[in-house]
Amino acid sequence: MKLDKLIGSRFKERPADCVIDSHALMIRGGYMKNVGNGIYSEFPVLKRITAKIENIIREEMDAIDGQEVLFPVVLPADLWDESGRYESVGSELLRFTDRNKARMVLAMTHEEAAVQLVREYAQSYTKYPFMIYQIQRKFRDEARPRAGMIRVREFTMKDAYSFHTSQEDLENYYDKCYVAYNRIFQRAGIPEVVTVASDSGMMGGNLSHEYMLLTPVGEDSIVLCTECDYSANMEAAENKMVNEETGTTQELQCIETPDCKTIEDVCAFLKSDVTSSCKAVVYQKNFDDTFVVAFVRGDYEVNETKLRNLVGEEIHTAEITEDDCLAAGYIGPYQIAKEAEVYLDVSLKGLNNVVAGANKEGYHYTGLNLERDLENPEFVDISKVQEGNVCPCCGKKTITIKRGIEVGNIFQLGTKYTKSMNMTYTDENGRPQYPIMGCYGIGVGRMAASICEAHHDEYGPIWPISIAPWEVHICCLRADDEETKVVADTLYKKLQDAGIEVIYDDRTGVRPGAMFSDADLLGVPVRVVVSPRNLKENSVEITTRDKSVKEMIAVDDAFDYIKDLKDKLYSRINEKVEESK
Amino acid sequence: MKLDKLIGSRFKERPADCVIDSHALMIRGGYMKNVGNGIYSEFPVLKRITAKIENIIREEMDAIDGQEVLFPVVLPADLWDESGRYESVGSELLRFTDRNKARMVLAMTHEEAAVQLVREYAQSYTKYPFMIYQIQRKFRDEARPRAGMIRVREFTMKDAYSFHTSQEDLENYYDKCYVAYNRIFQRAGIPEVVTVASDSGMMGGNLSHEYMLLTPVGEDSIVLCTECDYSANMEAAENKMVNEETGTTQELQCIETPDCKTIEDVCAFLKSDVTSSCKAVVYQKNFDDTFVVAFVRGDYEVNETKLRNLVGEEIHTAEITEDDCLAAGYIGPYQIAKEAEVYLDVSLKGLNNVVAGANKEGYHYTGLNLERDLENPEFVDISKVQEGNVCPCCGKKTITIKRGIEVGNIFQLGTKYTKSMNMTYTDENGRPQYPIMGCYGIGVGRMAASICEAHHDEYGPIWPISIAPWEVHICCLRADDEETKVVADTLYKKLQDAGIEVIYDDRTGVRPGAMFSDADLLGVPVRVVVSPRNLKENSVEITTRDKSVKEMIAVDDAFDYIKDLKDKLYSRINEKVEESK
Repeated sequence: MKLDKLIGSRFKERPADCVIDSHALMIRGGYMKNVGNGIYSEFPVLKRITAKIENIIREEMDAIDGQEVLFPVVLPADLWDESGRYESVGSELLRFTDRNKARMVLAMTHEEAAVQLVREYAQSYTKYPFMIYQIQRKFRDEARPRAGMIRVREFTMKDAYSFHTSQEDLENYYDKCYVAYNRIFQRAGIPEVVTVASDSGMMGGNLSHEYMLLTPVGEDSIVLCTECDYSANMEAAENKMVNEETGTTQELQCIETPDCKTIEDVCAFLKSDVTSSCKAVVYQKNFDDTFVVAFVRGDYEVNETKLRNLVGEEIHTAEITEDDCLAAGYIGPYQIAKEAEVYLDVSLKGLNNVVAGANKEGYHYTGLNLERDLENPEFVDISKVQEGNVCPCCGKKTITIKRGIEVGNIFQLGTKYTKSMNMTYTDENGRPQYPIMGCYGIGVGRMAASICEAHHDEYGPIWPISIAPWEVHICCLRADDEETKVVADTLYKKLQDAGIEVIYDDRTGVRPGAMFSDADLLGVPVRVVVSPRNLKENSVEITTRDKSVKEMIAVDDAFDYIKDLKDKLYSRINEKVEESK
Repeated sequence: MKLDKLIGSRFKERPADCVIDSHALMIRGGYMKNVGNGIYSEFPVLKRITAKIENIIREEMDAIDGQEVLFPVVLPADLWDESGRYESVGSELLRFTDRNKARMVLAMTHEEAAVQLVREYAQSYTKYPFMIYQIQRKFRDEARPRAGMIRVREFTMKDAYSFHTSQEDLENYYDKCYVAYNRIFQRAGIPEVVTVASDSGMMGGNLSHEYMLLTPVGEDSIVLCTECDYSANMEAAENKMVNEETGTTQELQCIETPDCKTIEDVCAFLKSDVTSSCKAVVYQKNFDDTFVVAFVRGDYEVNETKLRNLVGEEIHTAEITEDDCLAAGYIGPYQIAKEAEVYLDVSLKGLNNVVAGANKEGYHYTGLNLERDLENPEFVDISKVQEGNVCPCCGKKTITIKRGIEVGNIFQLGTKYTKSMNMTYTDENGRPQYPIMGCYGIGVGRMAASICEAHHDEYGPIWPISIAPWEVHICCLRADDEETKVVADTLYKKLQDAGIEVIYDDRTGVRPGAMFSDADLLGVPVRVVVSPRNLKENSVEITTRDKSVKEMIAVDDAFDYIKDLKDKLYSRINEKVEESK
C-alpha cells in the first residue's frame, strides 16, 4: 500500500508519559492510541502485526490438535460462583450488573467458560484428551496499567484449555505445548525467550511455567543460574540458603536500643552487621486478622507468594496498635506472643550471635542463636533469592537475577475447575472421574510490544520479517522526477504481483530524512531506496532495517535480489525453529 | 479432521426453547452453547464458519481501500459523553464503573472510538477520504434476546467507518460499499439478500440501507413493490395513501356512544366501516409529558419511528388520567384541547363522513370531514404501510410486506459525530471543516444463523461451500471392514493433501443412520459414502447436501470427481458475484 494513505501519524518527539522505549516508539510510529486508562485502539500498522502473530499462534495450536472455539467476553457471575473465583479473585475481576440486575463479569480468563462449554460433551473417557483454544479479548482491571501494550486492562489473548484422564497424559500434552510455545516465539523472531518455573497464583494447580523475554525494563524478576539450566520466576524460586558457621558463641543479652525502629537502625546503633540480624515482617490473615510474623535475615526480603502459599490463605500487611500483643519495631522470635503465627526463614538457619527484637518496646537481644534458644525451630523458605545465592539445581553459588516480560504461560491446573464446577466423565470401569486440566496463554498485544522492546534502536522497531507489518519498504526520493517514479512504480507493482507485502512511500515534497525516519518507525525489514542519484549508476539501494545488509543493486536485478533477501530473512528464522525440534 | 475428535455433541431432539429452525439446528448440531441470557460460546464447527465469513468480509473491505484497525470493547464513558450518546441511548448501552469508580461502557457500536482514533491524524483535507474497519466483539444489553444467534447480547461485528470532505464523496463511497456488501452476501451464498431503505434511528444521519434476508421468521417487516425495485424497512417506508372520493357528504353530528372505548366498538355500534373512522393514539414527550396525539384511519397503525422523527424528540405511550385535558377513548381531531400536539396521518386525507371521538366522555362525531371542519389541516406520514398500498416509486397499488432478518446495514452519518466530538480538518482554503462520515456494519454470527435459516431442511443446515465448516464429508460405513477402511483412508489423505477441507467419519459401532444424521447436521456440501456394498460395485456414492447431485462414482475416479464437484460449487457462487458487478 501507499504510505501516504496509511492511517496513523508518525512524529519525532518522545511522549513524556512513555517510560519504556517500545511504548514510545509504538506511539510515535502510529501503532496505537490510548483511549482510556490501560485501554488502546490499534492503528492498521499494529493490527497487521497482531494478525500475523495470531496466525502463527493459530497454526501452532492447530498442529498440536487444538480446536479453535470462541467464548464470550461478558460472562454471567454464576459461572464464577461455581468455581469460587467470583469471591476469591480481587478487584482485577470487573463485576457489574446488567439491565435486569443480573450479576456479570468481564472475563479476565476463561477456565470457567471452557468447562461450561465441554461439560456435556466430554462425559466419556473416549473423548479424551482434547484441547480447545480461542483468540479473544479479555479485561483485567489492573490497578496500575503501564508500559503501553505490556500491561493493559483490555487485551487480546490466545488461551487454550486441555482436558485429560490422567496426570501422565496431561504431562505429555504439557510437554507438547511447551515445545509449541517455543516454536511460536522462535517463529515470531524472539528465540531468546526463556522458560521459567513459576507460581500458579490465582489459577490454582500445580506445575506452571512462564515464557520470559529478558529485558532490563521487564517488570518480573527472573532467577537464573549461570552454570546450569535452572530458571524460575522470583515468586517461585527456591532459596537454598546456607549460612557459614562462625566459631564464637555469645550469650543472649537484652539491651536497650532507644529509638531503633528498623533493623538498620539497630545494627548501626550496636555496630553489628545486618547479615547477623533478624528482621520481622508482620502480616495479618484477611479472614480473622490473626498476626503472621515472618522472620528473615536482616538483608533479605520476604517473598509474599511463598509465605502466602505456606499460610494457606490470603494475608495483608499488618496494622499494629498499642493494644496488640506485638511491640512494633521490637519484634523478635524469642519469647514472642503465642497469639502470633511465626515463620522462620531459611536465611536465619545456622546463624550465630543474632540481633533481634526483644518483644519489648525499646529493647533488642544480642547473641541470639535460634537453634539453641528456641524450642525446635523450623526453618521454611519464605525469602526472595539474591544474586550469588546457591542454585537449587547444581548447588553452586551462581544465582543471578534478571528482569523479563512474561509473554506466555502454561499451567497444570489439575482438577481445581472440574471439581468445583462438577465436570465428570465415566472411566473405562464405569466410574465417574474428574478430568485433569491444563491451560496455556499468550498475550498477543504484549507479545508485539515485547518484540519491539527486544528488537529496536533509537529510531524505531526492527521487526522480524515473520511479523513485520510489511516485508519491503520502498522509498521513492523525488517522486516528482519522472524516471525515478517509473522505476519505483514498476518495482512496487512487480513485488506486489509476486505476493510480496510492500509499503510504498512515493510522497512528493517530503525530504529524504523525513522519509527515512518514517521508514525507521515502521521497522520494515527490507528497504529499497530509489533516487535520481542511485539511478545515475542505474542502481537502487537495498538495506535491511537491522543494518546487516547495505547494497547497491542494478535496477534490472533489484526484484530478484529483494525476493532472495526476503526469503533469506525467513529462512534465518525458520532455521532456528528447525534446530529446536 | 476426524469426526470422532470434533468437540461438540450432536443430538436428535429439538430443544424446547428454540423457536426458529436455525437456532434449533445449530444447538442440535453442536455449533454453539448458551452461556447466559443472549450470550453464547462457539464450538469449533461454528468458529470455522464465522472465520470464513470474516475472511470474505475482510477481503471485500480491503478491496474498497478499507484499513483494518481494532477498537476496545470497554470504553470510557467520557467518549460517549462527547457524542451525547451516554445520555441519549437507552439501557441497551451497558454502563458500569471500574475499580477506581471511573464510568465505563461496553461498546455496542464504535463511532466514538473511530472519531477518537483518527481525530489527530486527519486534520488536513489531503488525508481524505479514508475508511477504517474492525472485526470485534460488541455488547448490546437487549431487553429480549431471542432466536439463537439472530438477536444476542454479545456478538462479533464488522463495523466500518468512512470519512469524507463532501457529501458527494461520501455518496460515491457509499455506493462502493453498497456493491461490496452485495458481493459479501453473494460470496457467502445468500444472493437473495435484498436492500431496503431504512430509518437511521439512534445512529443519527441521513440516508441508510439495510440488507435483509427474507424469511418468514425474520423480526423485521419489509415493504416491497411487486412491480418495481422499491423496497424499504417498515420503519422508513413512505405511506402514499390516496383515499377514493365518495360523493355523499353528511353533516357533522355529535352522537352518544356509550361504552365504546375502541374505534372498533364505535364502528360496530354505529354500523359504519372502520375505513371511514379516525383513530387516536396518544403519546407523551419524555422531556415534559406534553401530549402528542396521532390520528390515523381506523384500520391503520401508527409508525412510531416516523412520528418520533416528526416530533423531533423521544416520546412514550401516554398515561391519561381524569384530570387531563384529553377524554381517553373519546379523542378526536375536531375541537381537541389546544394543549395537545396533534398530527393527522395521510391515511385520513380525502376521507368523507368520518367517525371520530368528540373529546367528551361517551360521545363521538359522525359526518366529520377534516378538510371542511378543521382549520387548514395538514396531513403527514405517520402510519405503517399496508399490503396493497400505493408504491411511492412506481405509483401502482402493488405494495407487499414480507419478513426479514437484517444481516447488514450502511448509514450516511453526516457530521453528527464529528461535530459533537469536535473533529475538524483544514480544507484547501485553510478553513476548518467537519468531516462527513459513513458507517457500515455486518453481524458475523447473525449472518451465519441467517444463512442457516435460509438454507436448511428438516435434517440440518445446507451450508454454501464458501462458508461451510468443511468442503467434503466422508462417511466410512463399516470402518471395521479392512477394504472399506483402506479406500476411505486413502481418499481422506488424498483430498487433504490436495488442500481440500475434509471431515472424516470413520467411527466404528455407529449405525449408518446415525452417521448420516450427523452429516446432515454438519451440512457439509459434498458427501462421500464409502461402504462394503458400494465397493462391491467398485464405487463410492457422492452426493451434495442440497440433493442436486447423487452419483455412484468408480473408486479410481472419486478424487477427480470430488475435486471437480467442489470447484463447480464454488463457481456457481462466483458466477453470481461476477454477474452483479
